Amino acid sequence: MIKIFEVGPRDGLQNEKTILSLADKVWLVESLAKTGLKDIEAGAFVRADRVPQMADSEELQTKLSPHQDVNFWYLVPNRKGLERALSKNVKNIALFTAVSETFNQNNIGMSVSDSFTEMKQMMARVKSLGDIKVRGYVSTVWGCPFEGKIKPAQSLAVLDQMIALEVDQLSIGDTIGVANPVSVETIIKPLLQNYSSRAKDLLAVHFHDTRGTALANALRAFELGITVFDSSIGGLGGCPFAPGAAGNLATEDLLYLLKEMGVDTEINYQKICETGMELSRRMKDKTFTSKALQAFIANCTKNTVWDS
Amino acid sequence: MIKIFEVGPRDGLQNEKTILSLADKVWLVESLAKTGLKDIEAGAFVRADRVPQMADSEELQTKLSPHQDVNFWYLVPNRKGLERALSKNVKNIALFTAVSETFNQNNIGMSVSDSFTEMKQMMARVKSLGDIKVRGYVSTVWGCPFEGKIKPAQSLAVLDQMIALEVDQLSIGDTIGVANPVSVETIIKPLLQNYSSRAKDLLAVHFHDTRGTALANALRAFELGITVFDSSIGGLGGCPFAPGAAGNLATEDLLYLLKEMGVDTEINYQKICETGMELSRRMKDKTFTSKALQAFIANCTKNTVWDS
Repeated sequence: MIKIFEVGPRDGLQNEKTILSLADKVWLVESLAKTGLKDIEAGAFVRADRVPQMADSEELQTKLSPHQDVNFWYLVPNRKGLERALSKNVKNIALFTAVSETFNQNNIGMSVSDSFTEMKQMMARVKSLGDIKVRGYVSTVWGCPFEGKIKPAQSLAVLDQMIALEVDQLSIGDTIGVANPVSVETIIKPLLQNYSSRAKDLLAVHFHDTRGTALANALRAFELGITVFDSSIGGLGGCPFAPGAAGNLATEDLLYLLKEMGVDTEINYQKICETGMELSRRMKDKTFTSKALQAFIANCTKNTVWDS
Repeated sequence: MIKIFEVGPRDGLQNEKTILSLADKVWLVESLAKTGLKDIEAGAFVRADRVPQMADSEELQTKLSPHQDVNFWYLVPNRKGLERALSKNVKNIALFTAVSETFNQNNIGMSVSDSFTEMKQMMARVKSLGDIKVRGYVSTVWGCPFEGKIKPAQSLAVLDQMIALEVDQLSIGDTIGVANPVSVETIIKPLLQNYSSRAKDLLAVHFHDTRGTALANALRAFELGITVFDSSIGGLGGCPFAPGAAGNLATEDLLYLLKEMGVDTEINYQKICETGMELSRRMKDKTFTSKALQAFIANCTKNTVWDS
């Protein structure tokens, strides 16, 4: 089965200017949890002064009701964040680094190597507990807003390193939306060859739609055998270091494509679009970048076979 | 070589509310002709009261300077339009029909069968002249705003009929943007099997981005062996019978993908984006749907390797 990992409430909202109220965030995550999505990135245990959009994640986490078979994930940037998350009994955490040194310095004030030292210590703590699932994000795999193109060998080395940490899932990120189907293959093929037998759903792809290529890249990754796709409700998000960058691949666009192709995800398209539409309303009628959502809202066709 | 057939000045502008001045249209077509594009749909010989956006196509046609190896195409809806075009010494014309009866009735007030009777007479006239190239558009191949899903066998029959007219190129249209990579294959594969040896570049695909899938569909068509792709500068266009429908696949998005994949088109990406940017300015700073253009304008990356 193909899985969608919803990153809107964290990766999406974190890069939006409008700060959603706690009540709206609770509504959003609960609403997403009722669509059939199994994995939702709900928040982050980060410094409130650095990331005001995520200041209430701790409170959010206590307010969410449990949903059967739905995992809520929280981003933790370092050991301090990890301890905060663990103290709240969080069971699904996400770590992150980037391939690009300059991006890492700007994003977390650390070299790539130092970030792995930190993550190693975090993993040791997590493994000592036994019941925590870990997702590892690697950003700027196909390019960096500061350094430009990144050599595939450099990216593959960092991705290998993340897998070597024994994360349960690796999210391979095209942070600024410059991957293309050929370069997707260059990165994904060796990873699938080396690791596909090791763990089901180990590899996830995370595409941004900055230049309109996210869905084409997802299609190629799907053709290659990738089973987990990150996306964001409405297409929310962007990159703080890439001015003007459009957001993540939209969940509506991805799900529309998959359902039309006859790919089973167990996610309800109508409910996803209704959530996107209502979120847009709650964000002061923001026009989301998702074209499938725009078509759903406009009810483009008299016959709505495609929009339900 | 992969070819892009630019439909912005006709199919794009025809579906825009803003009517561009004749001077701006001349600038647009001339500007596009300097990008390396070889085929540009410049206008239509239609009734001015029905399609006010194309009222000045006849005048436009006389004002365009010749560009080596660049073909300017004009849409003609019937014999009357054809004669007007021929009297102006037009050498590249486009005919059109649709798979859906209801769409045809609403669009041209004719049954599909009657439209073929008309086109047969037009083709006889054209063939008697000997030096006219003809493109045949078939709309609603994957779906209709009135009738919903269209059976592939029904579409293939109409597409076969258009090829049987001996057009030089067939443009296979997803008028309301409901194709997906699987259904693209269902239509394209048999056509390539039956006709690929008959004429180089006989088959072109025309995708709309209503639900964000245009580029993914183009990718699948490219993988299958299609060599001609319709697109519209900025993503201009839509469908008059599909309210809220987003426009054509954007030339910037398509070209970005192709150049990044290392596919040669001989078209200059920077010049295409500069034309899109200037057109947006001349259309009262309209935000075009093309994400690649938006990224180009925002100059998303400090290092602009991807945007030039």
